[in-house]
Amino acid sequence: MRILGIDPGYGIVGYGIIETEGNNIVIDYGVISTPKEKTLPQRLAIIADCIKAIIDEYKPDEIAIEELFYFKNQKTVIPVAEARGVIVHICGEKCGRVFEYTPLQVKQALTGNGRAEKSQIQFMVKTLLNLEKIPKPDDAADALAIAICHSQINPALNQNQIV
Amino acid sequence: MRILGIDPGYGIVGYGIIETEGNNIVIDYGVISTPKEKTLPQRLAIIADCIKAIIDEYKPDEIAIEELFYFKNQKTVIPVAEARGVIVHICGEKCGRVFEYTPLQVKQALTGNGRAEKSQIQFMVKTLLNLEKIPKPDDAADALAIAICHSQINPALNQNQIV
Repeated sequence: MRILGIDPGYGIVGYGIIETEGNNIVIDYGVISTPKEKTLPQRLAIIADCIKAIIDEYKPDEIAIEELFYFKNQKTVIPVAEARGVIVHICGEKCGRVFEYTPLQVKQALTGNGRAEKSQIQFMVKTLLNLEKIPKPDDAADALAIAICHSQINPALNQNQIV
Repeated sequence: MRILGIDPGYGIVGYGIIETEGNNIVIDYGVISTPKEKTLPQRLAIIADCIKAIIDEYKPDEIAIEELFYFKNQKTVIPVAEARGVIVHICGEKCGRVFEYTPLQVKQALTGNGRAEKSQIQFMVKTLLNLEKIPKPDDAADALAIAICHSQINPALNQNQIV
């Protein structure tokens, strides 16, 4: 089964595609960047177009998107959530099976510890996908972590489906 | 000129269309409601489809959308911003001229007081549009207020255009 993991953001959206036949194998990963000098609708359009293109190219069976959780910075949360809304909407339109996970669920699934450090998550992404190095940038590694988290949850018990 | 004003929300989105030839005239107003029992992508899809349908039906020359500002409730701001992202994205795709205004700008434009009460805004919507009653529900009156705010700002000095 092919899973697309997405780490939502406004300036940078991470994505990672894995194939779960036998061991998990990385198909591709990367980030969508939106230029600061563009307006909100222009940046949202870049994100929407890129997410559509990634789904068209890799045809994932299922998509896992990280939930926004606690934010210290009130100014940051609004544009990130605006971008996430567009991402969830596009994924729901283009894929029949969409799931969302909290950061805590992702950390728990990869390390057994919901309070694990970022470096531990990155180490587990490298290990579980048999990679030589930790994927860069961080947002792409986070997206792969979300895809791995989804692959590890028993489908019969999965409560996280939203489409 | 025809203006569509939008008061973004997740459970309820307000909209109002005015025509600005001579005095402002109301063309239509109302709300888009999304059922609580539906999932996030389903509710975002309802909002997206309704916004598209409203733009297709009324063909506004310009669209004015309220910005999210200060939120006391951290849990509320995320879904409202997710819905607003979808709204801004659709408006940017379907209309060549999109503007955003803070709640303070709307209050200032309608009453001259950025801290005006909701009832004052509603009274001014009724008065400025020559209506017999205050439009209901509140979200529709808010959307008309945003459209009126946009109509009152000198286009040559307008700094609020985002498309």
